[in-house]
This record gives sequence, structure tokens and C-alpha cells, in this order.
Amino acid sequence: GILVKNHLVIFDVAHLELTPREQAAIADVITEQPRYVLGSRVFHPEDTIIQTAHNRIGGQQFTVMAGPCSVENQAMITDLAAKVKAAGATVIRGGAYKPRTSPYDFQGLGETGLRYLRAAADQQGLDVITEVMSIDEIAVAAPYTDIFQIGARNMQNFDLLKAVGKAGKPVALKRGLAATIDEMLNAAEYIAAQGNLQIMLVERGIRSFDSTYTRNVLDVGGIAVLRKLSHYPVIVDPSHASGHADLVAPLAKAGVAAGAQGMLVEVHQDPAKALSDAAQQLTPAQFAPLVQQVQQIHALLQQPLT
Amino acid sequence: GILVKNHLVIFDVAHLELTPREQAAIADVITEQPRYVLGSRVFHPEDTIIQTAHNRIGGQQFTVMAGPCSVENQAMITDLAAKVKAAGATVIRGGAYKPRTSPYDFQGLGETGLRYLRAAADQQGLDVITEVMSIDEIAVAAPYTDIFQIGARNMQNFDLLKAVGKAGKPVALKRGLAATIDEMLNAAEYIAAQGNLQIMLVERGIRSFDSTYTRNVLDVGGIAVLRKLSHYPVIVDPSHASGHADLVAPLAKAGVAAGAQGMLVEVHQDPAKALSDAAQQLTPAQFAPLVQQVQQIHALLQQPLT
Amino acid sequence: GILVKNHLVIFDVAHLELTPREQAAIADVITEQPRYVLGSRVFHPEDTIIQTAHNRIGGQQFTVMAGPCSVENQAMITDLAAKVKAAGATVIRGGAYKPRTSPYDFQGLGETGLRYLRAAADQQGLDVITEVMSIDEIAVAAPYTDIFQIGARNMQNFDLLKAVGKAGKPVALKRGLAATIDEMLNAAEYIAAQGNLQIMLVERGIRSFDSTYTRNVLDVGGIAVLRKLSHYPVIVDPSHASGHADLVAPLAKAGVAAGAQGMLVEVHQDPAKALSDAAQQLTPAQFAPLVQQVQQIHALLQQPLT
Amino acid sequence: GILVKNHLVIFDVAHLELTPREQAAIADVITEQPRYVLGSRVFHPEDTIIQTAHNRIGGQQFTVMAGPCSVENQAMITDLAAKVKAAGATVIRGGAYKPRTSPYDFQGLGETGLRYLRAAADQQGLDVITEVMSIDEIAVAAPYTDIFQIGARNMQNFDLLKAVGKAGKPVALKRGLAATIDEMLNAAEYIAAQGNLQIMLVERGIRSFDSTYTRNVLDVGGIAVLRKLSHYPVIVDPSHASGHADLVAPLAKAGVAAGAQGMLVEVHQDPAKALSDAAQQLTPAQFAPLVQQVQQIHALLQQPLT
Repeated sequence: GILVKNHLVIFDVAHLELTPREQAAIADVITEQPRYVLGSRVFHPEDTIIQTAHNRIGGQQFTVMAGPCSVENQAMITDLAAKVKAAGATVIRGGAYKPRTSPYDFQGLGETGLRYLRAAADQQGLDVITEVMSIDEIAVAAPYTDIFQIGARNMQNFDLLKAVGKAGKPVALKRGLAATIDEMLNAAEYIAAQGNLQIMLVERGIRSFDSTYTRNVLDVGGIAVLRKLSHYPVIVDPSHASGHADLVAPLAKAGVAAGAQGMLVEVHQDPAKALSDAAQQLTPAQFAPLVQQVQQIHALLQQPLT
Repeated sequence: GILVKNHLVIFDVAHLELTPREQAAIADVITEQPRYVLGSRVFHPEDTIIQTAHNRIGGQQFTVMAGPCSVENQAMITDLAAKVKAAGATVIRGGAYKPRTSPYDFQGLGETGLRYLRAAADQQGLDVITEVMSIDEIAVAAPYTDIFQIGARNMQNFDLLKAVGKAGKPVALKRGLAATIDEMLNAAEYIAAQGNLQIMLVERGIRSFDSTYTRNVLDVGGIAVLRKLSHYPVIVDPSHASGHADLVAPLAKAGVAAGAQGMLVEVHQDPAKALSDAAQQLTPAQFAPLVQQVQQIHALLQQPLT
Repeated sequence: GILVKNHLVIFDVAHLELTPREQAAIADVITEQPRYVLGSRVFHPEDTIIQTAHNRIGGQQFTVMAGPCSVENQAMITDLAAKVKAAGATVIRGGAYKPRTSPYDFQGLGETGLRYLRAAADQQGLDVITEVMSIDEIAVAAPYTDIFQIGARNMQNFDLLKAVGKAGKPVALKRGLAATIDEMLNAAEYIAAQGNLQIMLVERGIRSFDSTYTRNVLDVGGIAVLRKLSHYPVIVDPSHASGHADLVAPLAKAGVAAGAQGMLVEVHQDPAKALSDAAQQLTPAQFAPLVQQVQQIHALLQQPLT
Repeated sequence: GILVKNHLVIFDVAHLELTPREQAAIADVITEQPRYVLGSRVFHPEDTIIQTAHNRIGGQQFTVMAGPCSVENQAMITDLAAKVKAAGATVIRGGAYKPRTSPYDFQGLGETGLRYLRAAADQQGLDVITEVMSIDEIAVAAPYTDIFQIGARNMQNFDLLKAVGKAGKPVALKRGLAATIDEMLNAAEYIAAQGNLQIMLVERGIRSFDSTYTRNVLDVGGIAVLRKLSHYPVIVDPSHASGHADLVAPLAKAGVAAGAQGMLVEVHQDPAKALSDAAQQLTPAQFAPLVQQVQQIHALLQQPLT
């Protein structure tokens, strides 16, 4: 049984052996409750707001997170921090531990990269989001980051979810490439069950039968459904969904139009020379007007309907 | 070989036997041209604008098409025409021939339904769009409709595409449930090759692995890609993508944000009692504010970036 | 209501207004009956056997159907008929009307091709199977073919299904690229509802997220499910599932192992020079040993378990 | 660069700066080599055979692995070990650490379960295969198991792959639910790059658009492709692909017919009461005749073609 706000949630009712006195104390029985009780809006109807050093994420806010796929060296991340800040970002992203398909690809700078990232963020007054891929990396990254990111490939790495749930910091959980909405909310529940409800849900595109022009299909319906079923902030990642720089803008705009409360965008000074994700990163010059348009759409959608 | 605007497009160059004089006459060779030469932007960079009695579809315009899944009787379609017109629609939709999964489901009113639909449209000064499922139905429907719709299940019914291409009226071609972008543009080419370039491309959601909460996944990236590769107007159909009324609004907004130049929405006075698609139709009261928001997003996106 | 073997099957029971006398006459109520009543095993538990001039298809039989993707000329089809017969085929396939993705690809020889095909089959004592793509082609093809094939792209071309259902000959219905099992059985029901139960169900691979090495994924579980839910013969088409000649053999063997009662294989004298499907056709020399192995597996599976 | 059997494999040739002397020493340049050099057949054409205490896995062998989804208590696993052995299994499976979708589901007995499993295996002279979900569990499980299993959800948990690669025991790597063949072979390369080539590749079904009757689609074409591209043994897991006990047999037979060199089947004394995977486990009485049929198909396929 799980205790949620003075409600005792019990699955598998057939297994129960309640005394008559216990049964008399039950006010009502909720039968339509999904298994992810902590993440569900049933007992928690209001939006979760995540408070970090520099941001309030969720609710009516729209949070812009941006930065390079990988932290490549100190100069680039220091320079990019200033540029994404100027464009409207309040969180900087950057990978130090990279989940690469091949073991022979660039695997990230590790703790050195984290140090560069933190310094660049502090100079600009930005929060940091960075990915951890294993339990050991949580302790290494904790001093440097404000938000832990769990990547799509690790969405159902349940031991990692439990460990990051115990780490006491906000977690951005990316949807697996072929994860259902229910599987994603159950994965979030692994984090929540450790007492950590500071969770963001990131839609970053799902696998489909056609990857000729778009690497993945951004599931905008999934964004709307997550907003409805759960109280956690929902973030759109148009960069990984598209796989191509010229599709990032339409996907970002579609994501916010569907209800996303933030976006996570890859930005690089010279994408063609990037050590990873060369095809899909935006230049700062492409990024700045996108932030403007996305914020305008978001503002428009907050206005009451007449 | 296909002649496009004074360019001779030749596939299968290896099969060619050109005389030296012919070869000398070739100004340049275009190698990156896709097979759908008539639909491609390579030779036709400007947007196609489709002119109907009451609409200019494409370019900077945003066209609202709405109406019931099926024309059920004369009273309902007459009443609905007034209501969707009041909400901002300029084209009325309504099915007279219905592609139903089971042969035992309601198959539509046929020509009687078309007559009701045309009368309702004329009363309100609206264009009509309606689906044809077979070659015979083209001649029957032609006097009643302004736009022929080819449904998702018939996207690669090539004989139907050829026949509707010869009929001399605009055609709205829906993307098949598992059709790639290239397959869709090649299907459109079957229509175009008959001399009819008045084609709209309709994104209506594709099959994915998760249909618990959304019937299909609206491919907003596909909308952006179609806008880039082709000059035809691109329309979003949020009703069939969602399968649930409460998801129609976020999908419609996402579609326009991704670049759609029109939307096709199912509206019914009393969706729960509809003879088909009961779950996903909007009431007129839900539809009116949606039109407003979608038009605001569209207007915002036409403004120049600063 | 549908009358099946003296059982009146009624959907939508809520709409019923039966007199007390009618209600008293109801022996039992079957609630788990799917909508495809004619194709279901519930009222028709025994396998359907389709009798043609040269074959009994279904039940414990295993039927080998083979031939080129397209009938290209008379010499090739006459020669191939002898070769596939020698290898064990009893039905010859060959396309005269070709559903090609692009309108600029070879579209087939039409009636001329059908004449060549019939003559070649008659010389060898083979049945003919060939695809029809439109209602008009049914009347043209009827004198030349023993079995009508409905292609994957037309699985839900409902008017074509109705027309072929009336034509009075066996029909091989191919599964659509993203059709569910239920959609396929409902499509078969459109044929059956015209009084024609001589239907074969063809599994030919479905779309997936990975087409690097296999064009489609052969759904062997689907073969087993169709055998269980329906009484129609189930045929495997390994050629279209694989898209590559070297995968045809393992897919054919997997299909028969999963329960297929026949196979439909593309064979060509010189695949590299074929006018369509060059990559996936087998040579007669590759085809002959495959027939042997597949028949051995089929025989093995008919033996009683000890 | 990677050294494989005296060949230096170098990616990213553009980055090279070789001295003239080094260049003179290069015998030939292989350009079609995939990135997974250690797993590829290009330099390693012969099948890998994995030698364990009781088995030779790979090559012409067919290895039967069976047991319950979860080790539930000592009596059940002791009894099952005898039963699966009698039916022909030479490896016993059983989960002690369970990757469950919800955190509130049974998570396995942990080390206690491993102890029961080892004892049962030793009594019968069987090898043990069991899943590890995190780096810590590798050291715990090592004394009890002969083969580490990496589950589908962890196929791209790269730190776990590196750690299990260092552990010095055979590894069975399951294909992710939406992993491409290339991604799977690159994941195996993470293990191989640690010096461990004792790898089995397990096909266990992939996600598709239709899960009404089969939980996943068994990719039999994928089995054939893995056999062709790689030298590792390929194992079919029909239990997780089907999700339903009555589909396990046809999928197992299809898998071996497509080229699988072993199968991994869930067996339970009383599936309906199992603590996990109740729907898909076979009883020993269902399992025994399946082993017989599968072995007959395998034997048949080893015979030379005439």
C-alpha cells in the first residue's frame, strides 16, 4: 500500500485482509486510479512547480534550456553560456557522459566537462542540466548540476531511477524511443517512490517507420496526454526528435502549442564541427528568434478564451 | 521523360541513347531531383494556391474546414453548416460514402447525403469537401462537391488517384496510416501526372506502438517536411489523429505551429449520438474558441522575425 | 443481423426490440463473437478448403505459388511456368496490373500479360493467381485467372473488396502494411458478406522502425493468430516481407513453421534485369531447394506429437 | 584504431596522418567494414562457439534454455529444474532481479533467489542464465550464474555493458524493444571491446502497431540477418515475443526455422499463479513436445540440400 496525502492506496485488493474496524474507516474506494499514484493528477490535481536556484519550472512558466550536445572544451561552453542566456535561456545543457551508439565514438569529457559547465553557468546565472548514465556518476555530477537528466535509453534502467530518486535534486526523465505513456509514468514513479517528486517529463520523439526526413516522430499528442494525466512539468526536446537543424523550429513551436512548459534545445557555435549530433544543433543566430516565437505562442495560449 | 516548365526530366539516364546534337542541347543536369517532379519545389519553388468558389487555399492563407464525420440527415447538416460558418469555417466537410472497418457498420447516405451537404453549403456560402472511395463515385459526387477527398486507406489506390486526377477539381489527399513522406508525394504525383496540380496534402496521424490515449501520432515533423519538399498546401486533420475530442485542440494548435495552412475538423451537434466517430467529434461550442486560437497562432507565425 | 448457419447474429443488442415470443426462441447468447462473423472460427470451426482446377488449398495441404513479379513478355513466362512447376509449384503468379509507388515506373502489360500468363499456366497444368487493382480489372482478368489477388495497398479499398466478393472466384487478400489482425479479418468480411467464402489470407510483412536489412517484418505471430481466429487458409509471402533475395528462404521456412498453409514466392530467370522487384526475386535454382525444405518442415509439423 | 586478428581497423580515415613507412605497410583497405568490428563476420567468418560447464552454444548446436520468469521459492525451482531437464533443456533460466514496469510490482528475491537457482541447477547438471540490471548485481550474481543476461530495457545501458564485458563470463544480450539491428550489434560491441567475445544475441520481439493478440512481433528476419552479419550465437525468446502461452510454440518453431541456434522459454508449474508473466509461461507438459518439434526442425535444417 502507498500513502498519498492521507489516502491509503492499495493495489491487489483480493490479497487484503482488513479487520471490520479498518474497513469501517475507509471513506471511499477509488477504482480508476492508475498504478503511478504519486505522479497521477487524481490525488494531486494542481501542477507541480519545481524551484531551482534560478527558475520556477512548471505551471504557467515556460523554461528555455539550451546548450551543446557535448561539452567539448572550456572556451566553447563559456562562450555558449553567454549566447544562450542572451537569447532567453535560463538553464544550460551539456553532456559530459555521452550515451553513444558505438563504443568507438566520443564518450564525453566526464568530470572535467562538468567543471567547465558549472563555471560557465555560474558566470551567467544559469541552472545546469546534465545527463547521468550510471549510479556512480550521480555522486560525481551532484556538485555540478541542478537537474539530473535521465536519457531515453535509460528510461527503464530501474536501478538508476531509484538512485537518482534518492539524490534529492530535480530529475528530467526522457521518454524512451518506444516507451508508451504508461511506461513513462511508471518509470517516473520509480523516482517518485523514493520521495522525490521534482520530476520533469521530456518528450523527444518516438520511433516510427519513416526516418528518411525526420529521425523520430515528435509525439505532440503525448505532450497533451502527459499534461492531463500527470502534474509534472512537461518539456519538449525538438532537437533529438528532428535530427535535422531545419526541423527544430517547427517541432519546438508544435511542442509548445501542444502544451509543453519548457524546451530543451541543442545549440553549438559551429554545428558542422561538433563532436556529436552535428546535424541537428542550431547556431546561436538560429536559436534566438526561435525562443522569441515560442515564447509568443506560449503567452498567447495563457490568455483566457473568449 | 517528363516535361516540367521547359525542363525535360529524364529518369534512368543509363538507358539513354542521345545523339551528340541532343547532348549539346542539354543546359544542365539536375541529379538531386526526386521522382515526384510535378509536386517538388525544385522546379516549382512558389506555393501553389488553390482557388475555389469561396476560398484561396495555400500560401499565407489559413483555411478552416469543418463538419460532421457523416451526413446523417438534412436537418443536422443544415444546422451545422450555419454553426461552423459562424465559428470561422469556410469549407464544410461531411461523409456520404464512408470507409468503415466492418461491412456491418453504417456506410453513409450516398448521393442523398451529397444533396443535403451541397444545399447546406450553398445556404451559407461555403465550399464542400467530401470523400470518394471508388471511380464510380467521382462522377456521382462531382456536381455536389468543390474538393474531392481521398482517404488514408486509399492513398495508394492508384487507379482512383488517376481517375480523380482527370476530374478537374481540387483533391485533398490524406496520408496513409503507415505511408512514408516519399510514398505520399509519389501518390500525389499520380494525380498531378493527369494534369491536375490542385492538390492538398493532409496529415492525419500515423500508426505507432502506443494507442492507449491517442489513436494515431500526429506527425508534425511530416507537416514541416511536406512544406519544404512540395509546393502544395498542407492541411492538418487533428480529429483522426487524436481519436478523442479532448486532444483535438492541442493537435490542431501543434499542426498550425508546425506550418499547416489549414485544418479539417470533425464537428457534430451531439457527438455521443453520432453514427460514426462518436469519440472524436467536437461540439460547435468547443470548436469556436479553437478556431480563434489557431488563427491567432497562424497570424503570429506570419509576422517577420526580428 | 447476419444469418450464419442457422444462428442469427445481432450486433448492437441495445437497439433491439424483441417480442417476448422472439426472446423465448433464443437458445443462447454468444457475447464473445467478433464482428467478422463469417470469417470467425466460432461458427465455422473446421478449416476452409478452397477447390480450384488443380489444387485443394487449406487444411493439411501446403500449396506452392510462384512466378515473376511482373509478366514481362511471353517467352519469360512460358519458360518460368515450366521451371516453377518442376520445382514443386502448382500455382503460377505474375503481375499484369502493377501497383507501383511512382506513376513513372513500369505499370504492367495489362490484358496482354494476362493472356501470356494463362497460356503458360495451361501448358503446365497450373492455376493462375494475379492482382487486380480496380473494379474494372476484375471483369478483364476473370477469364484468365483462377485466383484474384488483392494487394496490401488495397486491403481497405472497400468497394474493390465488395466487387471481388461478387466475382465468384477465390480471393487472396494481402495484409496491409500497417493493418491490424482485426482490420484484416474485417476486410475479408467485406468479401465474405457478398457470399464468397473462398478467401486466402496472405501475411507479407508489416512496417517497422528498422528497414536497413529487411524491407518489412514478417509477422509470424500474425500467421499463428489468423490460423486460430479464422478458418481461411493462411499463406506466407516471404518475398515482399524480405525485400532481399537472401532472406526469402529463412522467412519462408519461418512462415511454414508458424502454421502457413502455402507460400507465394517471386521467381525470375534473371532477377537483376527484372522490370520490378529486382532485389528480392529468386532464381529457379534458388527456388527448387527451398520448396523441398519448406515441404519437409510442413510434413514434420503434420505428424502427431508423442 | 582497433586491432582485430592482426588487422588494424581505423575509422575516420580523414583524421589520419600516417608516415610514408606506415602507409607502405598497409596491405589492403577494407571500406565496407561496419563499426562493430569485433562482432562482424568480415574478420571473423566462422561461428563463435561458447563453451560453458555443460554446453557448447553456437555453430551447429541447438541449446534449450528454460525456467520460470521469476525464482519464487526453493521448492518450485528445484522441481522445475528436474522437469525442464527431462524435457531437453540444458540451461535453466530464472529471474532474481526483475525489471518490472511498476515499482509496486514484485521485484524478485535477489541473492536468495540466485542461491536457490544455483542449487537446483547443480542437482541436475544444468548451466544457469540470469538477468543483472545494475553494475552492483554483477558481482553478487557472478558466483551463482554461468551466463549473464542483459534485458531488453538495458540493451543500451552502456555502463552496464562495459561492466558485464569485464566480468569474464558469457553474456546473453536481448534486443531492445525498438532497437535496430545495427544498434544491437553496436551494443554487443561495448561488451566485446572489453575483451569478451562470449556473446549471445537474443531476439525477443519488437514493438509494432498491433498488440491485440501478440505482445510483440518476433522479428524472424532479424534472426537471419544477425546470423549473416555476426558470428555470435543467435537465440530466440518466443515467450516475451508472444505474451500468450498458446503462441509460444509457433514462434519458437518460426525462430528455429529462421536460423536460431537456441531458445529461451519461460516454464512454470502453474502459470496462472506466477508472480510475474502469468499469461505467457508454459507448463512442463506443454514444453516437452515443443522441444521435440523444435529439435526436429533444427536437425532437418542441418541436412545438406540436394
